Amino acid sequence: MMTAVLRGAGTDPPEERDRLMTSATPRKPHLLHLCWEMHRAHGSVFLKRCFVFCLVEQLVDEILKLNEDPKIHGLVLDLPIGALSGRVINSVCAPYVLTVGKKVLIIGATGSLEAALQALLKKKGMITISSQWLSKNLKELVRAKLILSQISEPGLNSLKFKLFNTVESSSRWITNQQRKRWDVRALKLQPLSPVPSDIEISRAQTPKAIEVLAKEIGLLAGEIESFGRNKAKVKLSLLERLKEHPDGKYVLVAGITPTPLGEGKSTVTVGLVQALGAHLGINSFACVRQPSQGPTFGVKGGAAGGGYAQVIPMEEFNLHLTGDIHAITAANNLLAAAIDARILHEATQSDKALYNRLVPTINGVRQFSPIQLARLKRLRVDKSDPSTLTPGEVSNFVRLDIDPSTITWQRVVDTNDRFLRKITIGQSSTEKGFIREAQFDIAVASEIMAILALTDGLADMNKRLGNIVVANNRKGQPVTAEDLGVSGALAVLMKDAIKPTLMQTLEGTPVFVHAGPFANIAHGNSSVLADKMALKLVGEQGFVVTEAGFGADIGMEKFFNIKCRASGLYPNVVVLVATIRALKMHGGGPNVTAGKPLTKEYTEENLKLVADGCSNLQKQIQIAHLFGMPVIVAINVFKSDTEAEIDLVCQIAKHSGAYDAVSCNHWAAGGRGTVQLAEAVERAANEKSTLSFLYDLKLPIVEKIRTIAQKVYGAKDIELSPEAQSKVDLYVKQGFGDLPICMAKTHLSLSHQPERKGVPTGFILPIRDVRASIGAGFIYPLVGTMSTMPGLPTRPCFYDIDLDSDTEQITGLF
Amino acid sequence: MMTAVLRGAGTDPPEERDRLMTSATPRKPHLLHLCWEMHRAHGSVFLKRCFVFCLVEQLVDEILKLNEDPKIHGLVLDLPIGALSGRVINSVCAPYVLTVGKKVLIIGATGSLEAALQALLKKKGMITISSQWLSKNLKELVRAKLILSQISEPGLNSLKFKLFNTVESSSRWITNQQRKRWDVRALKLQPLSPVPSDIEISRAQTPKAIEVLAKEIGLLAGEIESFGRNKAKVKLSLLERLKEHPDGKYVLVAGITPTPLGEGKSTVTVGLVQALGAHLGINSFACVRQPSQGPTFGVKGGAAGGGYAQVIPMEEFNLHLTGDIHAITAANNLLAAAIDARILHEATQSDKALYNRLVPTINGVRQFSPIQLARLKRLRVDKSDPSTLTPGEVSNFVRLDIDPSTITWQRVVDTNDRFLRKITIGQSSTEKGFIREAQFDIAVASEIMAILALTDGLADMNKRLGNIVVANNRKGQPVTAEDLGVSGALAVLMKDAIKPTLMQTLEGTPVFVHAGPFANIAHGNSSVLADKMALKLVGEQGFVVTEAGFGADIGMEKFFNIKCRASGLYPNVVVLVATIRALKMHGGGPNVTAGKPLTKEYTEENLKLVADGCSNLQKQIQIAHLFGMPVIVAINVFKSDTEAEIDLVCQIAKHSGAYDAVSCNHWAAGGRGTVQLAEAVERAANEKSTLSFLYDLKLPIVEKIRTIAQKVYGAKDIELSPEAQSKVDLYVKQGFGDLPICMAKTHLSLSHQPERKGVPTGFILPIRDVRASIGAGFIYPLVGTMSTMPGLPTRPCFYDIDLDSDTEQITGLF
Repeated sequence: MMTAVLRGAGTDPPEERDRLMTSATPRKPHLLHLCWEMHRAHGSVFLKRCFVFCLVEQLVDEILKLNEDPKIHGLVLDLPIGALSGRVINSVCAPYVLTVGKKVLIIGATGSLEAALQALLKKKGMITISSQWLSKNLKELVRAKLILSQISEPGLNSLKFKLFNTVESSSRWITNQQRKRWDVRALKLQPLSPVPSDIEISRAQTPKAIEVLAKEIGLLAGEIESFGRNKAKVKLSLLERLKEHPDGKYVLVAGITPTPLGEGKSTVTVGLVQALGAHLGINSFACVRQPSQGPTFGVKGGAAGGGYAQVIPMEEFNLHLTGDIHAITAANNLLAAAIDARILHEATQSDKALYNRLVPTINGVRQFSPIQLARLKRLRVDKSDPSTLTPGEVSNFVRLDIDPSTITWQRVVDTNDRFLRKITIGQSSTEKGFIREAQFDIAVASEIMAILALTDGLADMNKRLGNIVVANNRKGQPVTAEDLGVSGALAVLMKDAIKPTLMQTLEGTPVFVHAGPFANIAHGNSSVLADKMALKLVGEQGFVVTEAGFGADIGMEKFFNIKCRASGLYPNVVVLVATIRALKMHGGGPNVTAGKPLTKEYTEENLKLVADGCSNLQKQIQIAHLFGMPVIVAINVFKSDTEAEIDLVCQIAKHSGAYDAVSCNHWAAGGRGTVQLAEAVERAANEKSTLSFLYDLKLPIVEKIRTIAQKVYGAKDIELSPEAQSKVDLYVKQGFGDLPICMAKTHLSLSHQPERKGVPTGFILPIRDVRASIGAGFIYPLVGTMSTMPGLPTRPCFYDIDLDSDTEQITGLF
Repeated sequence: MMTAVLRGAGTDPPEERDRLMTSATPRKPHLLHLCWEMHRAHGSVFLKRCFVFCLVEQLVDEILKLNEDPKIHGLVLDLPIGALSGRVINSVCAPYVLTVGKKVLIIGATGSLEAALQALLKKKGMITISSQWLSKNLKELVRAKLILSQISEPGLNSLKFKLFNTVESSSRWITNQQRKRWDVRALKLQPLSPVPSDIEISRAQTPKAIEVLAKEIGLLAGEIESFGRNKAKVKLSLLERLKEHPDGKYVLVAGITPTPLGEGKSTVTVGLVQALGAHLGINSFACVRQPSQGPTFGVKGGAAGGGYAQVIPMEEFNLHLTGDIHAITAANNLLAAAIDARILHEATQSDKALYNRLVPTINGVRQFSPIQLARLKRLRVDKSDPSTLTPGEVSNFVRLDIDPSTITWQRVVDTNDRFLRKITIGQSSTEKGFIREAQFDIAVASEIMAILALTDGLADMNKRLGNIVVANNRKGQPVTAEDLGVSGALAVLMKDAIKPTLMQTLEGTPVFVHAGPFANIAHGNSSVLADKMALKLVGEQGFVVTEAGFGADIGMEKFFNIKCRASGLYPNVVVLVATIRALKMHGGGPNVTAGKPLTKEYTEENLKLVADGCSNLQKQIQIAHLFGMPVIVAINVFKSDTEAEIDLVCQIAKHSGAYDAVSCNHWAAGGRGTVQLAEAVERAANEKSTLSFLYDLKLPIVEKIRTIAQKVYGAKDIELSPEAQSKVDLYVKQGFGDLPICMAKTHLSLSHQPERKGVPTGFILPIRDVRASIGAGFIYPLVGTMSTMPGLPTRPCFYDIDLDSDTEQITGLF
């Protein structure tokens, strides 16, 4: 039985370490200078205090040699932190690290040294295990203890003791991490009456420094990147660190068919986590969408919640945030510019000229870039030497041959600019007459936003960006972002946007703000990544609450069929938000219009209208049940609602199969006003629920659409326009038939006609056109005309918005 | 002789303080809850440990009462930190604060409490002095000591002792702050040969955490806002804190007329501060421009310097940075959208309908917003009640009556998108036929970028944004952003962008990155604010090095006549960058074109070409002398340059009046390669120099243009097109005649014809058109056609750019 021990100089006096570090010539990141002390107990080799400046590669070779020695049973490698470069030290997250290979136990490496070691050991065919994971995995620790117990050489006793200590402290750390409750300091709320404006409430509360909150919820210092005092991006490495941890409970907030004023899903979401976190002491996270900046200056209120249920500081939430939408705009428009520029260059150059420019000779060398090699592979040209392509292959390679009439990729701005809804581009003489009609969409309508919301990591995002189909070529084949050679650049532009932004509620509980795909043409749900990270952070007994845009017939349906399919996550409870106002509208009340005062039907008790309107609520409950989910109805209470009205709704809701129905007063009272809802959600989450998808992806596209229309909307049938049908045929031919469906339908009715309230029946849902977001991974049928660019009214809200140049405070923002 | 002392509860036991804080009802920021103990020695009033929760206004009243009491000689107010709200504590910068009023000495208030106190005391006519300044001003401290020494009441001895200590520690703090040298830890460089790619060099160096650098250069923790690990925004309050400190030396790096490849002004700028800071140990700051993201993916290299003289991490420098350009894009496009939307709404509504919408009745109240009142004032309608306007006044108020043919405000994107150079907008039926021709410019060409570069603070920026002229009305009067009601919103969008971003060089010395106005149509210089802040930070013996875009005939001329006029700063030295390559071109060498290999004239010694080309260098030296500046010629050395060539240039340069001429090797060697230049700059900065502007602002516009053309470019005369002349007349009529001139001329020749190298003479400079940036504050004549939107070539650099999804590292970026 043999044990080899490689030990580092971690315990050497600091001066010696400093001398070693400064006399070494660091050529990072591969040439890490290490020093080690090697013992061999039975192996006839015994190197004592042998300081060696070596490459990490040499160290690996040494390990491999020992590994192959059949006489050696175990190998313990203990590398010092002190001797590592600044970059390594900076990325240190845990003091000790264990890696178990095929027959090797390594202890001690940290951060990028460990990563380098692992990568090299993997290359050499050894099994390695993430140290982050290992140090948190009790089973492996037990195994480590077992190996340690087999070390019986007397000369190794002190080392053995040290290792046992390491294992013990790791165990304690894990137990700590898995403790049930965070130590989150709640911010006190003292709600005023009448409730002040959103920005006044937000400004009156002092948020915790974001680093403080991050620490409270178990994030490590190296896992966050602060953006000023109140926002931080959280690194995706968190998912790797906690990958063996159990997920928390997952709650979706959806709504009944709303009035044009909105019924308060965001405030319920925020109020619910304030109640769970600050009042019931349960770990809880809200995951919400980042709003477009366009409406902030146009007609809409903020999206940070409202009243005493808000994400703060609300002005930072509503403006710029951490730049994700700006990054999307940049990436989207780079791709758009690449399309038109490519068409122009192809149209004005010979194959040879194009080829010479696309694959130039630089310092005598001519080679393809990796993205060009990928295109060659798709073209089935198995060559890597540019000089060997046949003229036909050259032509195929250089000519994307985009058919301008098929371009579906539009430019975007994050501004409500109605004059860009339809434009003609390329009218400068430098573009040689290649004019065409195009449009700008609002930035959040970009497919890249949908990709950000659905991706589960960098590699997946890169793939999705490359898969984006921007047009067809003249043979009817799809042309992708990767064909244009631009997908790597898009990923580079998006590399920070992929990290969710941590903020907090008015009561100091954590919130992830991440992605906000346009609900009109995309799926309208915040990101998969934020949900995944939050579910790990809250732990098994904790709650993650997220929101689906629009009514449940649209937002929730897409949440399940698109987002959950992509994420593999299974929710536990649906909270269905209703207001007396919206129910009265469904019951036959007069039109509700933004900017106009409500009629007396809405300001006085009217039980008949409420009772009649509950049909819509019932229907939405049934839709949630289709997916196998328990439903809690949350009535977002307004001042004018009467007790009798609220009781009636609760009764009907429970009678219609809701698990519970409660009224919520978060807008005026904060989390305290939503405690009843929080308790109901907690109970319901302990019920068994099983998510079932509405349709099989293998069904024909038209069948999938029909299923949604009939089962969810209550349509009699669907009817495709010839254009829609031919698009369906094209997508099937192009191989995109198995994607889920993302309906683009009005949210103001279960049907396609906004004026039909309640539960319309007997209608035929017209499918005007069908489009595809291949990178995001869905087909979106257009039911009627969907606007992708809001406009500015005569008096946009910007008239009231100003900056006080003395206090630097914003006035007039909601 | 009387002394009144108001003392706070700073020394109370923590539990008592906590109790006090939690039982108070904070309504911030005005209702700070304070507790104090009041003593009066001779004044017959003696309040002991009287805890009072009071409003700051009440406290001020108390002070004023005591102040008016002729029997009271001094008043000492010592406010506790402990009892202040979290928000106040967070903004605490110094532990104690002194404020000397007319006859009152106040000690103890901090942060926003102090600000509130000061504001109120000012309002009541008392003299107050910034505590930040006071705590750093020795003279005032001596005065404070004097007052203290007059306190002789026995009961106040312990307080007196405490105050003396405060004064002493403040004195020490000041001495520390005014010490000559920062304690900046230089990052070691070990340059490799051959020099690796820019991104490899950048990545191989580990930057200091930005908080560390900030501390090293004397920034307080509350003065920075981190953006991740490597960037931080620095708050403008710094200028207030250091306003009595002397400025450092101010160095401008300009260049001779360049080849299309650029001659390395940015690398010289960065190399020079690396030499000054890391090798000579002199406090030094580089202030550089933020590059547009468009060219990053198009044709150009990075703008972070290059080789071993770079700002790091260069990928963060070149991408997104801290979002300033994105903020400019958002603000620019909001204004653009507001223009077209307004034209549409005016064209489709009656005066009454417009008025009802612009000034709606909300909850029974109808009132103008502040920005509307400002418009009324400009219209000379002295009314504030909307119901009292006459129909004529209503019509004037609601109708901007914009003449679409005069719109000069364009939309922008930060993407090289040539197809947006000329477009038609408004073609969707929702815009009711209001189509017009328009264009997109690259974002850095936005006037808002020029405003950012020239402003000296929030109030000034707000004013400039409001002053932007977007078009004329049909009477030929200017229509401004403020008329559109949108200028407050623009300021809100720009509120973070106004803070310069702190980064570092490869050798760990500080850099401000801030603003990058397009040199083609704006002034091409980084921001006034960054320069001002850096000049305060480096201190009297330190150096701030900034760069002017293009050749000295354009960039430097605008630096002096526009930027220095706006800032009131006077530079000490001009560094004029030349390359052997560019000189040979001016001497008659063949064309130099991007992407084509250099001919042998450039790769082999050719003294004749060099000697002949020095005419351009001589002329540029003379131009710098026009402004009264000493000139150091810096030869940016390439591998192929010979010693004889370099010596020849140095000789000619000195003979032509340069203070000195040295060769620089920063690209290959970092700061070590620029030490000689740094030493020369240091010597020259000690010479007396006096900035003289080239022209008087009161001269007629045409005379100002002629002065620049003749004195700087060497033109025989200028010739205005009829269009240009009519614009000049219009601007004079509109009251804009006194603005400085910002020439839009090619940088590739002293003349308007890029192909004329050396020193062209006898030419008549044609002025094709004249435009105005009223917010930024200059008139810009167009000499020929200036492109404001670059394009993408057949093979843009994005082909090589990719993101490694395992390491998150960017590949292929320069």
